[in-house]
Amino acid sequence: MKLKILITILFLSANVYAQNDKETVKIIYSQSLTNGKAYEWLDHLSNQIGGRLSGSANAEKAVQYTKSELEKLGLDKVWLQEVMVPKWERGEKEVAYFDSKGGERDFVNICALGGSVATSDSGLQEKVIEVKSFEELAELGATVKGKIVFFNGPMNPELINTFEAYGGCSKQRYAGAYEAGKLGAVGVIVRSLNLRQDDLPHTGSMGYMDLPINQRIPSAAISTNDANKLSQALKNDTNLEFYFKQSCKQFEDVLSYNVIGEITGSECPNEFMVVSGHLDSWDLGDGSHDDGAGVVQSMDVVRLLKESGVKPKRTIRVVLFMNEENGLRGGKKYAEEAKRKNENHIFALESDSGGFTPRGFSFDCSDANLDQVLSWEPLFKPYLIHYFEKGYSGADIGPLKKDNIVLAGLRPDSQRYFDHHHAANDTFDAVNKRELELGAATMTSLIYLFDKYGTVTISDVKD
Amino acid sequence: MKLKILITILFLSANVYAQNDKETVKIIYSQSLTNGKAYEWLDHLSNQIGGRLSGSANAEKAVQYTKSELEKLGLDKVWLQEVMVPKWERGEKEVAYFDSKGGERDFVNICALGGSVATSDSGLQEKVIEVKSFEELAELGATVKGKIVFFNGPMNPELINTFEAYGGCSKQRYAGAYEAGKLGAVGVIVRSLNLRQDDLPHTGSMGYMDLPINQRIPSAAISTNDANKLSQALKNDTNLEFYFKQSCKQFEDVLSYNVIGEITGSECPNEFMVVSGHLDSWDLGDGSHDDGAGVVQSMDVVRLLKESGVKPKRTIRVVLFMNEENGLRGGKKYAEEAKRKNENHIFALESDSGGFTPRGFSFDCSDANLDQVLSWEPLFKPYLIHYFEKGYSGADIGPLKKDNIVLAGLRPDSQRYFDHHHAANDTFDAVNKRELELGAATMTSLIYLFDKYGTVTISDVKD
Repeated sequence: MKLKILITILFLSANVYAQNDKETVKIIYSQSLTNGKAYEWLDHLSNQIGGRLSGSANAEKAVQYTKSELEKLGLDKVWLQEVMVPKWERGEKEVAYFDSKGGERDFVNICALGGSVATSDSGLQEKVIEVKSFEELAELGATVKGKIVFFNGPMNPELINTFEAYGGCSKQRYAGAYEAGKLGAVGVIVRSLNLRQDDLPHTGSMGYMDLPINQRIPSAAISTNDANKLSQALKNDTNLEFYFKQSCKQFEDVLSYNVIGEITGSECPNEFMVVSGHLDSWDLGDGSHDDGAGVVQSMDVVRLLKESGVKPKRTIRVVLFMNEENGLRGGKKYAEEAKRKNENHIFALESDSGGFTPRGFSFDCSDANLDQVLSWEPLFKPYLIHYFEKGYSGADIGPLKKDNIVLAGLRPDSQRYFDHHHAANDTFDAVNKRELELGAATMTSLIYLFDKYGTVTISDVKD
Repeated sequence: MKLKILITILFLSANVYAQNDKETVKIIYSQSLTNGKAYEWLDHLSNQIGGRLSGSANAEKAVQYTKSELEKLGLDKVWLQEVMVPKWERGEKEVAYFDSKGGERDFVNICALGGSVATSDSGLQEKVIEVKSFEELAELGATVKGKIVFFNGPMNPELINTFEAYGGCSKQRYAGAYEAGKLGAVGVIVRSLNLRQDDLPHTGSMGYMDLPINQRIPSAAISTNDANKLSQALKNDTNLEFYFKQSCKQFEDVLSYNVIGEITGSECPNEFMVVSGHLDSWDLGDGSHDDGAGVVQSMDVVRLLKESGVKPKRTIRVVLFMNEENGLRGGKKYAEEAKRKNENHIFALESDSGGFTPRGFSFDCSDANLDQVLSWEPLFKPYLIHYFEKGYSGADIGPLKKDNIVLAGLRPDSQRYFDHHHAANDTFDAVNKRELELGAATMTSLIYLFDKYGTVTISDVKD
């Protein structure tokens, strides 16, 4: 413990970086802002390919496109890593409405949640019970039998980190049908995970876990405006019936790929550092923020290292994971293979929080490693990068977790993210070129520093 | 000097705030994010009124609307302060084109710069000389006589603070016609001050200074895409002629108003603190970011103080200035009246950099005052407010500058600002509700702290 404190003090006072690091970081940012490729790649991925749900033809196109673009960069190696992924299709556009007491029919905006079963061909019409939490649902118990459960818990607007607000109610979406299905409900409608009041339904994954097939009920998201409208209508008419129809379908798993490119390390080729995003996206928009941004930023990291004259000592891998959204199969597969081949991964970074102005990183690592990062703060300050805290890193790199690895997540400004997340407006026009490029430069700079100085391992501290 | 250092150390070590300040700041942010009025006001200002150029009917509507809204807040006093403002009108939509060597006619997107004279009714057609700087213009000297000068200096994308990039070439827009007119040029086309490549021309003020009337030549902005196109065409054909027509007009000055509301201080009513934005905007968009955002945030500051249970010791004034864009008459008038009435202004804050996620403030103040602010950093950290530096405050509050006053400018994220600045896409949909509300809360928190702890005056330091 004492030694750790000593090391901490040394890091804090010594500032583990050299004058030329300042210059290299400046070159990296300038390269990204004047000569970046991320935006051009994103344009293709979003506007020429579009939404890339796992197992879809678009996902396959994205695999081929990014592989061929990585091949143009003069990396030491580019390859595809096979992974079996789930395949789910939305089918026809969903329809939903309810009839108000006055006799008017209100059509509302819904979308099937990923993984949901369909309704019957004629749709489903039943009475609705609104709840704001699983506690409320549990209290209702068997009274929900035969009814549609309407989960209407809103994201908490008081939380500054909108991901925290998301985490606070994403269980409604993921496990709403499971919990309501167990009680005999026949359908589930979930308030979209969106802090904004608008007409867009936001999809996302849900799961039936161990529910028997006959209890697997259809589950859809409703726009925030329509959730408010439905809630109001229910206050006036508790017997109100809600109708919805969706024709989504789960298929057999299909073969897909993680796309991987590598710069082999000049001094420690057997120490691996990963920079990553995920290639798959939901189907409603074109997946520009989630996670086209992370994909093209990660691709540009390896290009920017080269353009900035950095020759990595360690092996840097850009990994474009498949199937983050509804299975995490790519992340799991990559970690399994790394383990099987006994590859020593010391660091992994994921960008999967949108292409907005970067604010910093959150780290899943030891105190000693965070202290080293904090000693680099002055290098990042000119670029308004100020956030270096412990916390969540990224879903796809999570399976790599072990002692002595540093996992990091890029933290962009989060205020607008859930306006677009999993919705039809997650599109190219919502991404700002400079913001995207600043993110790529910030990621490149962190990779540069960790490659140069390494991570602090437990054996270093114990010495 | 020694004493100043001592005070600095005391501030840094003592952290000039109390536990209940943490709670008050939390209440302020929660109020703004759950119960804010700024967005609703901005909706009206942008969508019901629209662009509000000084002297226009819309500017007058904005005066009446904001006055009546302030009157609903239960302030101690709300009034209008008379100010004579310039009145300039764009007239018909501008037309511009050039003919390529191949014979094709390329229509391009331009807009008259504010304050410019019109072309003749039939328009102006002449050969073009491109320059990137005033130095290049000076070298050309009399060779520009009879020609159209095309100022094509781009904003520097490498600068992280986009306002710095703006400052680096805004002189082209403001003084281009003046400098080219002196040399006998007949017209000026200026590259839009926009870091993005798009089709929107960005207007803004220009001035002829002491130029004789017969040397006052028409001046227009061209979109960045069209600037690139024109530059390319000039490389192929140096004899290319450019045509443009604009019918803008300057009228006599007209009467307008600053809108002012006041909470009278409970302990030091003769110490005045200002929170402000400017009511006028350019005419192409609806002025949502510039500066509808600053207006509604400032209005919400006085409301949020009340809603959060803060009873200011000092007199807090919300001032909605008229005519920042093309004259600064409102700011000058307010300062003149303050001086005439011997009102002791100790602090003024302006929000005029867009309604984006707030990052902090820049201050025009003494070191001792900045040190006090820095001691408040831990209060702001939970809200990701991290930027507290010396620098520019705001145009409208500039005339209040004197010893012992603290001038401050809200610093929102600046990456997207110049995509919208003075262009047709400065509209309501480009403002995010939460980002706007976070700005209002950040401003309110700073006002709360300066009201509670006062400013550090030179006499304190000299003691």
